[in-house]
Amino acid sequence: MPEQETMGARAGGGTSKAALAYAASLDADAVMAAEDIWGSEAHAIMLARQGIIDEGDLGEMLRCLRQARAALEAGELELRPELEDIHMNVERYVREGAGPEVAGRLHTARSRNDQVVTDSRLHLRARILDIQDSLADLQEALLDLAEAHAETVMPGYTHVQHAQPITVGFWASGHGSVFARDQKRLEAAFKTTNVCPLGSCALAGTSFPIDRQLTAELLGFDGVLQHALDAVGTRDFAAETLAALAILMSNVSKLAEELVLWTSYEFRALELADEFAFGSSIMPQKKNPCIAELARAKTAAVYGNLLNELVLIKGTPGGYNRDLQEDKPPLWRAAADVSATVGILAPVIRSLKINTDRLRELSGANFATATELANHLVRELHLPFRRSHHIVGTVVQQLIDEAKTFADLSRVQALLAAEGVEVAEEQLSDILDPERCVRRMTSLGGTAPEQVRTMIERLRTGVASSRERVCARRQQCAQARKRTADIVEGVLSGAKLGDVL
Amino acid sequence: MPEQETMGARAGGGTSKAALAYAASLDADAVMAAEDIWGSEAHAIMLARQGIIDEGDLGEMLRCLRQARAALEAGELELRPELEDIHMNVERYVREGAGPEVAGRLHTARSRNDQVVTDSRLHLRARILDIQDSLADLQEALLDLAEAHAETVMPGYTHVQHAQPITVGFWASGHGSVFARDQKRLEAAFKTTNVCPLGSCALAGTSFPIDRQLTAELLGFDGVLQHALDAVGTRDFAAETLAALAILMSNVSKLAEELVLWTSYEFRALELADEFAFGSSIMPQKKNPCIAELARAKTAAVYGNLLNELVLIKGTPGGYNRDLQEDKPPLWRAAADVSATVGILAPVIRSLKINTDRLRELSGANFATATELANHLVRELHLPFRRSHHIVGTVVQQLIDEAKTFADLSRVQALLAAEGVEVAEEQLSDILDPERCVRRMTSLGGTAPEQVRTMIERLRTGVASSRERVCARRQQCAQARKRTADIVEGVLSGAKLGDVL
Amino acid sequence: MPEQETMGARAGGGTSKAALAYAASLDADAVMAAEDIWGSEAHAIMLARQGIIDEGDLGEMLRCLRQARAALEAGELELRPELEDIHMNVERYVREGAGPEVAGRLHTARSRNDQVVTDSRLHLRARILDIQDSLADLQEALLDLAEAHAETVMPGYTHVQHAQPITVGFWASGHGSVFARDQKRLEAAFKTTNVCPLGSCALAGTSFPIDRQLTAELLGFDGVLQHALDAVGTRDFAAETLAALAILMSNVSKLAEELVLWTSYEFRALELADEFAFGSSIMPQKKNPCIAELARAKTAAVYGNLLNELVLIKGTPGGYNRDLQEDKPPLWRAAADVSATVGILAPVIRSLKINTDRLRELSGANFATATELANHLVRELHLPFRRSHHIVGTVVQQLIDEAKTFADLSRVQALLAAEGVEVAEEQLSDILDPERCVRRMTSLGGTAPEQVRTMIERLRTGVASSRERVCARRQQCAQARKRTADIVEGVLSGAKLGDVL
Amino acid sequence: MPEQETMGARAGGGTSKAALAYAASLDADAVMAAEDIWGSEAHAIMLARQGIIDEGDLGEMLRCLRQARAALEAGELELRPELEDIHMNVERYVREGAGPEVAGRLHTARSRNDQVVTDSRLHLRARILDIQDSLADLQEALLDLAEAHAETVMPGYTHVQHAQPITVGFWASGHGSVFARDQKRLEAAFKTTNVCPLGSCALAGTSFPIDRQLTAELLGFDGVLQHALDAVGTRDFAAETLAALAILMSNVSKLAEELVLWTSYEFRALELADEFAFGSSIMPQKKNPCIAELARAKTAAVYGNLLNELVLIKGTPGGYNRDLQEDKPPLWRAAADVSATVGILAPVIRSLKINTDRLRELSGANFATATELANHLVRELHLPFRRSHHIVGTVVQQLIDEAKTFADLSRVQALLAAEGVEVAEEQLSDILDPERCVRRMTSLGGTAPEQVRTMIERLRTGVASSRERVCARRQQCAQARKRTADIVEGVLSGAKLGDVL
Repeated sequence: MPEQETMGARAGGGTSKAALAYAASLDADAVMAAEDIWGSEAHAIMLARQGIIDEGDLGEMLRCLRQARAALEAGELELRPELEDIHMNVERYVREGAGPEVAGRLHTARSRNDQVVTDSRLHLRARILDIQDSLADLQEALLDLAEAHAETVMPGYTHVQHAQPITVGFWASGHGSVFARDQKRLEAAFKTTNVCPLGSCALAGTSFPIDRQLTAELLGFDGVLQHALDAVGTRDFAAETLAALAILMSNVSKLAEELVLWTSYEFRALELADEFAFGSSIMPQKKNPCIAELARAKTAAVYGNLLNELVLIKGTPGGYNRDLQEDKPPLWRAAADVSATVGILAPVIRSLKINTDRLRELSGANFATATELANHLVRELHLPFRRSHHIVGTVVQQLIDEAKTFADLSRVQALLAAEGVEVAEEQLSDILDPERCVRRMTSLGGTAPEQVRTMIERLRTGVASSRERVCARRQQCAQARKRTADIVEGVLSGAKLGDVL
Repeated sequence: MPEQETMGARAGGGTSKAALAYAASLDADAVMAAEDIWGSEAHAIMLARQGIIDEGDLGEMLRCLRQARAALEAGELELRPELEDIHMNVERYVREGAGPEVAGRLHTARSRNDQVVTDSRLHLRARILDIQDSLADLQEALLDLAEAHAETVMPGYTHVQHAQPITVGFWASGHGSVFARDQKRLEAAFKTTNVCPLGSCALAGTSFPIDRQLTAELLGFDGVLQHALDAVGTRDFAAETLAALAILMSNVSKLAEELVLWTSYEFRALELADEFAFGSSIMPQKKNPCIAELARAKTAAVYGNLLNELVLIKGTPGGYNRDLQEDKPPLWRAAADVSATVGILAPVIRSLKINTDRLRELSGANFATATELANHLVRELHLPFRRSHHIVGTVVQQLIDEAKTFADLSRVQALLAAEGVEVAEEQLSDILDPERCVRRMTSLGGTAPEQVRTMIERLRTGVASSRERVCARRQQCAQARKRTADIVEGVLSGAKLGDVL
Repeated sequence: MPEQETMGARAGGGTSKAALAYAASLDADAVMAAEDIWGSEAHAIMLARQGIIDEGDLGEMLRCLRQARAALEAGELELRPELEDIHMNVERYVREGAGPEVAGRLHTARSRNDQVVTDSRLHLRARILDIQDSLADLQEALLDLAEAHAETVMPGYTHVQHAQPITVGFWASGHGSVFARDQKRLEAAFKTTNVCPLGSCALAGTSFPIDRQLTAELLGFDGVLQHALDAVGTRDFAAETLAALAILMSNVSKLAEELVLWTSYEFRALELADEFAFGSSIMPQKKNPCIAELARAKTAAVYGNLLNELVLIKGTPGGYNRDLQEDKPPLWRAAADVSATVGILAPVIRSLKINTDRLRELSGANFATATELANHLVRELHLPFRRSHHIVGTVVQQLIDEAKTFADLSRVQALLAAEGVEVAEEQLSDILDPERCVRRMTSLGGTAPEQVRTMIERLRTGVASSRERVCARRQQCAQARKRTADIVEGVLSGAKLGDVL
Repeated sequence: MPEQETMGARAGGGTSKAALAYAASLDADAVMAAEDIWGSEAHAIMLARQGIIDEGDLGEMLRCLRQARAALEAGELELRPELEDIHMNVERYVREGAGPEVAGRLHTARSRNDQVVTDSRLHLRARILDIQDSLADLQEALLDLAEAHAETVMPGYTHVQHAQPITVGFWASGHGSVFARDQKRLEAAFKTTNVCPLGSCALAGTSFPIDRQLTAELLGFDGVLQHALDAVGTRDFAAETLAALAILMSNVSKLAEELVLWTSYEFRALELADEFAFGSSIMPQKKNPCIAELARAKTAAVYGNLLNELVLIKGTPGGYNRDLQEDKPPLWRAAADVSATVGILAPVIRSLKINTDRLRELSGANFATATELANHLVRELHLPFRRSHHIVGTVVQQLIDEAKTFADLSRVQALLAAEGVEVAEEQLSDILDPERCVRRMTSLGGTAPEQVRTMIERLRTGVASSRERVCARRQQCAQARKRTADIVEGVLSGAKLGDVL
């Protein structure tokens, strides 16, 4: 409990303005104002329920906090830099509204050490849920695209080189499959985050008979983070969340890279909708994929934030150190960047134009089905591997020299015949045609349309489950918020705490 | 399936030695040799069960793979650099032992793209379990220490400054509480890792009627990572594991920092056992805490590895890109560093000497109980906060000026009296004595011995659960390995596959 | 020149508000407003000098730009988010003041691609000079401290363990020695930064007969960054600056760590002045070293910014990509954090109280001169190394067992005698006394006061040189700014350009 | 000097094998064996010259060190893990060859603290020079390519979209221009590295009358890093070098990205030589750009190494801490990765096939000269900007709708006429033809062939200067090495030191 008192000393004491300005955290704190007020309401209610403060004081505190909340909601919450952080600024409303003694009692069995990390966790959990919802939107956009194009062939790339024909549905559902794991990581980060440190005080707990379970409930936490030293000194929830965000962005950046490449003139595989492209008045053909480029750039920013956090906490001794104050700027920046990026990609994907003709042309253009032909010779004609590969290689080389492709089936047939292999043209068509080739890839998780459709269904179920869990968590938070608000209103209407709690 | 053939081309083809040397990955691959052989055994068995290869070929393959395994176990597995990677080196045993046609057939419905990531996942999952076990050892060492010192007072620090008295048990169990979350992150990483990509082939699945579920079972995976494009292009399991390791090390580094500081001459709070200290022949008092310093340094290394991985995968398009080859060096290095560090810290903690006298002296030396005195004046004497704080501040300043501490109870009493406050010396002793102070901190998760003991019990239960889950996972892996080995032995003894599968 | 026109398309075109909001960079751009205006003035003057625009247009442009500058200086520059960046916002003043045709002509032979990086370089170079000046202040504070304490002994630490006695002057000048290299790195970063990309246009230069040398001069650049593709696509000046800042902060963080440790109760070696400490009303002895802790934390932030920048530019193709827009937020944040941190540390160091008594006590307390004793036995008594070390080790162990130190000279003498070695007490005093020991360390760069004083002189000379170079660079910039302003005034007063250029 | 003695204690003392194994650094040290021997030779010579040891001892030391060197050169230097580091392993040769007393005397006025960082600097400086030479090769390859293709048109890209026509020579020389700054950063890193810390001893210098200047000269250093505390505790030379390498790799990765994209089927702009491509036996058209992909991946690795180093040194107090031991693995790994990558890219560039026809086709295909047409209307026909842009936009849109390009000059003329603008077909050809367009871009640093040729010349001069400086530095090192070797031979031949020094 000593820590919150330092402020009195500081403001009144000898600490210079320059030092206070250097140490201020108001910018990063400001976003947590609503959480700070809620936390104080819950704390005050608990103190009164436990008989640590009397109900008169409780009423005063809640009245002043209501004023602070009203100011916040009206966009008029005054944040004075010389008060350094959000806690002292909110407390000022109590101090000025009810006097320093009441304000002092509000800090019974509490310290800024546990208060700040309570606010952080309250704010972060909401950000995580927002991101999960945006990610679900993106997943659905990808799965809808996948469903619409379950049979649209396109070249499958490895090394940015044609490898085998796949379908657009396979590609889009592939990203959907990846993002399902990002949802899981975000859920894990949420669970790590949504536990209550309040009541840990400076680092050792308190001799007051507090009820930490009650505060945790009033704040919608899943439970209490018991160990007080752990609770005030730990920032792993921030690091874990940032790691989840960084990995999510790594996956986003891969999608973004494909959007950049595939909308280029040379690929012409995809086209961005006008509303998500950045154009030129004299070059109407130009559609710069700025959003995708910026998504890559934001990935770099989120990586930087993760590193910032990890470096921050490295090698500091346990308990609270002032270093920890700086855990919030990278966290809020990353959450904002990820929200914005994931949020805008869903409509980008939904509005994407798939150039199916171009994709079909590319699929057949560069011998991507050569391996299938070799497989056929082995499987059906029982040629040895080595010979089969040699023959197909020779045929392809010959076609390249003649500037032809597999589309020229009679030439392929003739070249195979010259190597002593007879394959009917109809069969060749079956083997070499990208669309038929794709349909044969029926192994579990393969690119064949029925496999893709099955995966889409499974992934949709996953997205629905994510949404349900996010929804349930939002409700838990909202109900706790409402319960606190109802108690506040009850007390301020003159009810006994015991009747409204 | 195209990718594995590239090797033939390369070795025989025009790719220069310099290019092959630059692209080689044998060092990072070598640790996965056993996994590569196991993967090939499982794949071959599956191919034969599905009728894709005949049992004669299966026998040949398994015989050659047994030779490779024997060579490996004898430390004689030959790894030729010009064969570039572990897959081609293992394949060489089949190629030389059974001819290129059989070796070629082993690659039916497989590609190096899915093969390499299968090996990686098999190897990594074992590394994760090892680390979890070492971490459980460290947790137990901390909890044992905590139990032995549940009542030993020490200063609780914030800002490396005395804040409030705590107990050594509280401190040690605090680290135990933190590490419990690291266990959870490692478990999550294990689950993300332990799914089977084999059968995804180059990127699109295959037209052969493979059974991916069977291969996954034979390899002890929890299930199949279905989407083929996701399966070959994803490295998020590596990034997630590295993130879990980086956060774990951030927590380790905080413990390490405390060991460095608290074993210094100035603190003299802890003493390292000789076997874990680095000394000097002429300065026997000198015990350099090199292990703790290196633990900090390894944290930096693991951070670097995490970043390496994240940067590697950023902005590459989906599917396999050669960049992905380089995902293993940071992963193996990090696993080794974490294993070694966590592994050595358990005995370091177990052998730590706690200087209880010095800790008690420090606890009382620097007015860490001043806040408790102020609280008392508010709570019991009903002084207003402001006045209470002012009085205690004045008393402390006076004691400092007189070079005294709270241990001089009669002087404290006199100084309080001078401020008009009467507190009995016995009561003062109760308030200001660090040990009694600690006993009053009975809030949930506080430093009071009974709270600490309750937390120790809960944390021990958690460690036991972690151990059980690790054990169950080890068994699942071992049973799958045994099943594969039994099938191999059966087939090589002349049994029909149907009879031994 | 195409790029700047895209804006017209965007604002008027189909790009959605959401997309524009996502792509906006106004926050990071806003700090470069003055530079953007200057850049346009210089560009316009050059265009007129080269006959590319006529003097009437020039007058119009300069008049509107003067309005923009006046608005900026009055804090009234209007920045409209829908105009996306600073260039379009400044251009708006020309567009609205002189019409779109004149505004269009201002963009002749220019693109936003070269414009933005010109602004960045102009702004960054000023930030670097500010940091260099602050760093010089910090160096001088350290050197002044060093001079004042050239003879004050303190323990020299390795592994946070006493190694040998040193002086406070040696310690403080050590940091001064380190920071001298940071000055060099900042100078190198300045040189890399201070070259002019303007006139590179979109990426290929222009067919207009521009004079890039003139623009570079008017903007105070050291020269032209000639290659247009390099000039618009390169951000290495940002990465190099961030690397210099990160290394500087690594050095700052080491000083900060020492401040945290050495101001602790256990060390009590240093005491922070009240104005730079964060206290407590009830624990007046408490002085939290928050500034030092935050300096560590800001180091983490700057590392994150460096990584952000490096990841941003990795793997993008040459030329301008929208990713590059995001190079500025990490750069400005890092510059601000470094400025604030280095800036506040100078007065922190100047106001530091050195607890000389405590330092002397610590210097003698823990056998730090044992090695000197062993050296003496070897050097003067010609004992073999092994025996000398064994004897000293035995003596120290004995003293530890008796809870004595080297201060008890007669006991040391007796213990040595028991080992068969006779050393006079006076000589022992000479060897074992920390202050005399320090005075003997006269090797080049050693801790002996005369060495320290010599180094201080040398380092002061270096600081003075840094200051001179910074001053010269500031003047070059200021003169160029004045020359541009004079031309603007001349033209707006109706003079012919040829008469005022 | 105390530090080196700890080994004796350790090996003989209580430190456990597990602890010694954890703390060992032999792998990273092994590469510095030659440097460690050289350092000891120089140190011994200096000690004898200063009369600190006698010439008999000197002879013994040099004889034993010669044995160690001979063993090293024969690949037979025995490195015992239990001796922990390279210093103790080299010392073992002296200890076993001349006895512990002589070995002990070799450590007079030296510590492992200054010894290890001397070795590191000696080794690193050689690595830097190697990389500079490889980079010069790459620069020359790029400039040769640029010269050969100074007139070959290609599309200039921004956002991976066609922006304006440029030449291959412009593109290639652009990379050459970038790398010139990397050379400068490497030179700066070399200068920071190449100063001598030897003689700083543990941290405070020594009371022996050493001559640090002499040792520095014998080791080929540019000078002495005077301040002993700075000298043993600083790793900024490593961080600065790693930063230079990271920035270099960021530039390499951009070239690599272009190689990956432009060798794709869709671009077909470049073709890798067979010896640097990775192919397929059945898909002869396939040439995977693995080297370029791995260059990107190595960039990630080098970034990780830089971060490792920066995190390592953050927040440790001054002087030597064991953390510093771990500075070498990231340094050596990064140097190796950069050497290999830069080294292989030079022949990759030299052997690159430029598809000039395809590049010309792409240059004209996508209206990249539209801006030039608009400029023409403004410049020559004095149309207002807005109208000019509107007209050209309309014409381009019309051509797109008709699936035509600017190559259809008569259609362009007709469309312009329909907008009321008359331009002769010949003039149109002049404006719209990519090759003529390129020739007009004659601004300083523009893509016009004469500008490119001028830049190539200037850049060649820069490469030559880099080479000269590298060469001079190599000579300085080699001469110092020879001088030391000559003295050693002289002494071992029985000469007086004074006669051969």
